[in-house]
Amino acid sequence: MVIVLKNNYDQVQLDKLTAWIREMKIEPHFTHGESQTIMGLVGDTSKIDIDMLGALDIVESIKRVSEPYKQANRKFHPEDTIITLENGAKIGGGNLMVMAGPCSIESEEQLTEIAMAVKKSGANVLRGGAFKPRTSPYAFQGMREDGLALLIKVKEKTGLPVVTEIMDYEHLPYFKDVDIIQVGARNMQNFELLKHLGRCDKPILLKRGLSNTLEELLMSAEYIMSEGNEKVILCERGIRTFETATRNTLDISAVPLLHQMTHLPVVVDPSHATGKAALVPSMALAGIVAGTDGLIIEVHNNPQKALCDGAQSLTPAQFDELAGKIAGVKAVAYR
Amino acid sequence: MVIVLKNNYDQVQLDKLTAWIREMKIEPHFTHGESQTIMGLVGDTSKIDIDMLGALDIVESIKRVSEPYKQANRKFHPEDTIITLENGAKIGGGNLMVMAGPCSIESEEQLTEIAMAVKKSGANVLRGGAFKPRTSPYAFQGMREDGLALLIKVKEKTGLPVVTEIMDYEHLPYFKDVDIIQVGARNMQNFELLKHLGRCDKPILLKRGLSNTLEELLMSAEYIMSEGNEKVILCERGIRTFETATRNTLDISAVPLLHQMTHLPVVVDPSHATGKAALVPSMALAGIVAGTDGLIIEVHNNPQKALCDGAQSLTPAQFDELAGKIAGVKAVAYR
Amino acid sequence: MVIVLKNNYDQVQLDKLTAWIREMKIEPHFTHGESQTIMGLVGDTSKIDIDMLGALDIVESIKRVSEPYKQANRKFHPEDTIITLENGAKIGGGNLMVMAGPCSIESEEQLTEIAMAVKKSGANVLRGGAFKPRTSPYAFQGMREDGLALLIKVKEKTGLPVVTEIMDYEHLPYFKDVDIIQVGARNMQNFELLKHLGRCDKPILLKRGLSNTLEELLMSAEYIMSEGNEKVILCERGIRTFETATRNTLDISAVPLLHQMTHLPVVVDPSHATGKAALVPSMALAGIVAGTDGLIIEVHNNPQKALCDGAQSLTPAQFDELAGKIAGVKAVAYR
Amino acid sequence: MVIVLKNNYDQVQLDKLTAWIREMKIEPHFTHGESQTIMGLVGDTSKIDIDMLGALDIVESIKRVSEPYKQANRKFHPEDTIITLENGAKIGGGNLMVMAGPCSIESEEQLTEIAMAVKKSGANVLRGGAFKPRTSPYAFQGMREDGLALLIKVKEKTGLPVVTEIMDYEHLPYFKDVDIIQVGARNMQNFELLKHLGRCDKPILLKRGLSNTLEELLMSAEYIMSEGNEKVILCERGIRTFETATRNTLDISAVPLLHQMTHLPVVVDPSHATGKAALVPSMALAGIVAGTDGLIIEVHNNPQKALCDGAQSLTPAQFDELAGKIAGVKAVAYR
Repeated sequence: MVIVLKNNYDQVQLDKLTAWIREMKIEPHFTHGESQTIMGLVGDTSKIDIDMLGALDIVESIKRVSEPYKQANRKFHPEDTIITLENGAKIGGGNLMVMAGPCSIESEEQLTEIAMAVKKSGANVLRGGAFKPRTSPYAFQGMREDGLALLIKVKEKTGLPVVTEIMDYEHLPYFKDVDIIQVGARNMQNFELLKHLGRCDKPILLKRGLSNTLEELLMSAEYIMSEGNEKVILCERGIRTFETATRNTLDISAVPLLHQMTHLPVVVDPSHATGKAALVPSMALAGIVAGTDGLIIEVHNNPQKALCDGAQSLTPAQFDELAGKIAGVKAVAYR
Repeated sequence: MVIVLKNNYDQVQLDKLTAWIREMKIEPHFTHGESQTIMGLVGDTSKIDIDMLGALDIVESIKRVSEPYKQANRKFHPEDTIITLENGAKIGGGNLMVMAGPCSIESEEQLTEIAMAVKKSGANVLRGGAFKPRTSPYAFQGMREDGLALLIKVKEKTGLPVVTEIMDYEHLPYFKDVDIIQVGARNMQNFELLKHLGRCDKPILLKRGLSNTLEELLMSAEYIMSEGNEKVILCERGIRTFETATRNTLDISAVPLLHQMTHLPVVVDPSHATGKAALVPSMALAGIVAGTDGLIIEVHNNPQKALCDGAQSLTPAQFDELAGKIAGVKAVAYR
Repeated sequence: MVIVLKNNYDQVQLDKLTAWIREMKIEPHFTHGESQTIMGLVGDTSKIDIDMLGALDIVESIKRVSEPYKQANRKFHPEDTIITLENGAKIGGGNLMVMAGPCSIESEEQLTEIAMAVKKSGANVLRGGAFKPRTSPYAFQGMREDGLALLIKVKEKTGLPVVTEIMDYEHLPYFKDVDIIQVGARNMQNFELLKHLGRCDKPILLKRGLSNTLEELLMSAEYIMSEGNEKVILCERGIRTFETATRNTLDISAVPLLHQMTHLPVVVDPSHATGKAALVPSMALAGIVAGTDGLIIEVHNNPQKALCDGAQSLTPAQFDELAGKIAGVKAVAYR
Repeated sequence: MVIVLKNNYDQVQLDKLTAWIREMKIEPHFTHGESQTIMGLVGDTSKIDIDMLGALDIVESIKRVSEPYKQANRKFHPEDTIITLENGAKIGGGNLMVMAGPCSIESEEQLTEIAMAVKKSGANVLRGGAFKPRTSPYAFQGMREDGLALLIKVKEKTGLPVVTEIMDYEHLPYFKDVDIIQVGARNMQNFELLKHLGRCDKPILLKRGLSNTLEELLMSAEYIMSEGNEKVILCERGIRTFETATRNTLDISAVPLLHQMTHLPVVVDPSHATGKAALVPSMALAGIVAGTDGLIIEVHNNPQKALCDGAQSLTPAQFDELAGKIAGVKAVAYR
């Protein structure tokens, strides 16, 4: 940690600060210039609250030198984390996981049909929303526990592991047969939820918040890991920018950057990132060449008739075509 | 609602769409141009999911004409909502409420001292954090229920009503003597929490999310109101932008805009918006001339010694000086 | 164009507006609802200034139905534009152009060495900056006209066409042997410069501004095209967002979106988009699978020794490796 | 400047870097920790290109400790700069300048009428656009040199000094009787234009770019100042964010922040910042309490009839009412 002092700092205050830092067993090193003094702190500075230091009259600015995330940090865990589901499906370390399915679960028939189709095309996990976070209280909120029951039924019929979103840790009992629990973008900093999920023994798919930095995403992963659950999968799903041509802006560079920063698997959601079905295939492939460990893609069997799914869903036929391209690109340019 | 059709739309699909719209008792009106066809839908379109329509092959784009928020909408409730606390303090309709206090509750002594000081300067509500949302799991998480107990104790000693943040509806029993329950920016779209607060009979201070639009803020208010609790206070606390000179960017124009859109009271938090104590006074006054119904300001008795509060807190003396200016400006330019 | 009228509009004002619209030979169509009136305008509305209409008391909001760009619009020019350089190299319509070279031209030796290297690896255009836009007046501003002279010399030696940035149309005489003239992101809305370039007979590489929408990018292309020069190449080079881990955020979805909107070729600049050499290869490949018509990549022969080039340059060896991957990916997943 | 080295840095490379730094007469100071090494550079580091350093393999990150702007920096020029126009009107150091007038100059009659009205209400500078930067080449581009001639005519008739925008330094001869030359947001980083204006002897009103930081604004001021023209007035006019309810987001905290960073006068443009006339008065007053040195406000004599001015113009009557409030607020809460 580097502390830049104000030009005209008060020596008494600096002595207090120095003493306080030494109490934490950290030795400050000073660089005195003509018009600047810099304090370098080396050692375990993870306990120092950067906002506290910033409050001091004598401090001009502070720069963290070491990352505030520990358990997610690749520096202390150089090998990729590989997460294995109950049925043996793997993600991370070169294992690509393809999750596909409808935005919302509507009926057993719909879900079964889509599940069979995406499985045939090569998806190895079924996605489907039961608890749906909606901006409007007047919009369809999902089939909730009934939807979860259908999802488990279709898991048993098809043998596909399932991933679905949780919005409230009180609902955890309904998730006991779910293979991967998803935390949505809006809940990325719902810290009470994260702590509870940290006490589960299930993989957690943690989506990046609409305007959260990669460091904040890792700090949220850290909330889960620090409670004991190390099976965290990170998900880039688009960020909020000034551009209105897409629902969000897919930050594709997040994939290689996260791989530098952390050992955890990274997944791309091209459906939510763009909000437009026509863009999903090329963005999915962009994820592959960027080194993603997984994809999560919306597929719906009849977007036209149903009138109840987003503009971002592929048809099973479109998904099948994409699956072929994924295999082709993966063969020539994957990590 | 206006639906713009694609140039080469399929008539069979359009007939299906028209029939579906008529089922909802809405009559579509067509404007046919040389290269465009526009469908105007008038009537109660609040049940139509805009994402569903967008999924249709024949639809190019959609524009909502009426606002998706109902209970918060000023059109249907032209008078300002005035909320009265148990002790008679009011907010809204020309009643300015000044909330002040420390970021975190540290001890009874600290809290009492600050409460007495801000009360003397004219604050009519005491703020103080017990449950603290922190980006890092390793940072101080607040005194939690013990902090709340201290807050209630100081409320009784000083007669000041209190406002404090909730992070989990499971904690609601601890809040029974709290006057205003705050929902933090990170939980603005924690819809399960909002629904539970909608079943409370207490004023809710709802903070705008870091990257949420004003319309989304009102939709979150709508979640609370649609469950029966109409006592919602909105709070502008800065949005996330590219600028790094301040922690967030105070969107001061949100105040008059929200007053156009809704009848609910609007509060400004200049401390979190800027993250810098030196900017708090001028931003608080900007709130006043913009017509805010309230201010929520961090005050700490000894930022230097404590080493445990943000760079954004005023001292009681600075707050007292600000309170004088607030009164002066309010007298000449308030709504 | 759709005009939504305010609830309580004044009929006299509406009559004036209607008359004014009819003067422009456009017939308004009305949809009257219980609480809303919508005016649909069909015909050539490109002359109507949307800001003018918005100024009217009776207007609540306006939605453009047809795009404001004409000559760049794919609707009126469905086939891809293919631009051919003097030496026969092509871009667009399935022809991939790879532009590579140093950020700044430093010396004939440096430039020649890099040019030979990138040519060998398969680049078909040499890039090199002579006039350098720098945030600081104290930073190196490029070799300017001397740099351009070196660039032309190396063009002659190697046979590689060249692309380089213009900052002022007064410098146009120096560009007479340049093959592609680049307009930098900071000048995307320097309309006087664009108009002058519209009177040139050279391809223009127009970079997207840091915070400009795709529509604004096309409107700037329109400035060039409306003066007679139809050879415009668009370039996505990252946008400014809240994320600080990369210099900018590469908006990879801009590539397929621009291909939907316009017939003009689209190029990706992974070097400026990320500012980090380690991310360049994967972002270049993401461009390929997204369907880019070209890449523009910084290559420097000795980033370590020179101490004068960006963190974003590849070495010739890294570029060679990337070139191989580009060919591989292109073979399986290019448009 | 603080350089953080990578964990496993190469000693030979570090020795080269150290030697290179010493060549510039700067002595590096090292802080060696268990897992980190920090280099502190004190002295005149303004010549060191931060991007160059970032390119080195051994460097993890860099933090500038001193600001890159010199002439605009308040540290080296603690007193406010006061700029005096030819007629004696002043801005800065407690002198508030109110600039008002139409967005575009339309006719001598229109301009005279508005000028007389705003002068009567207390404006001391007339604004009016002759060269208009427009997103679309098909939109009205202003009356250009003819407009400037009218502006000068009305200046002579009314005695009001004038401010108007330049888009091209080739037009400078037309500006010889203009009192303040404005650089628009889109040209804030048109460095060739800035350099030419730096050789003028006229006050320059430099508008902040749509997505430029305050530091970048000051670096652009530095371009003008480093060429010899110290009469730079900075202007906050709203930044681009994700919010769509206003055209831009007024960053009101920029006013006190700029006053900390620089001695140059700071002006607020509430008209362009919001794009909505109804918000202009409260945002203008917010500027006053934030300590602005000036306001630049659009006023139009008949927005309804003219059909050619923005939704952001006040009528002369509205401006007159606002002028009264400005005086009132200024009396109680101005710097």
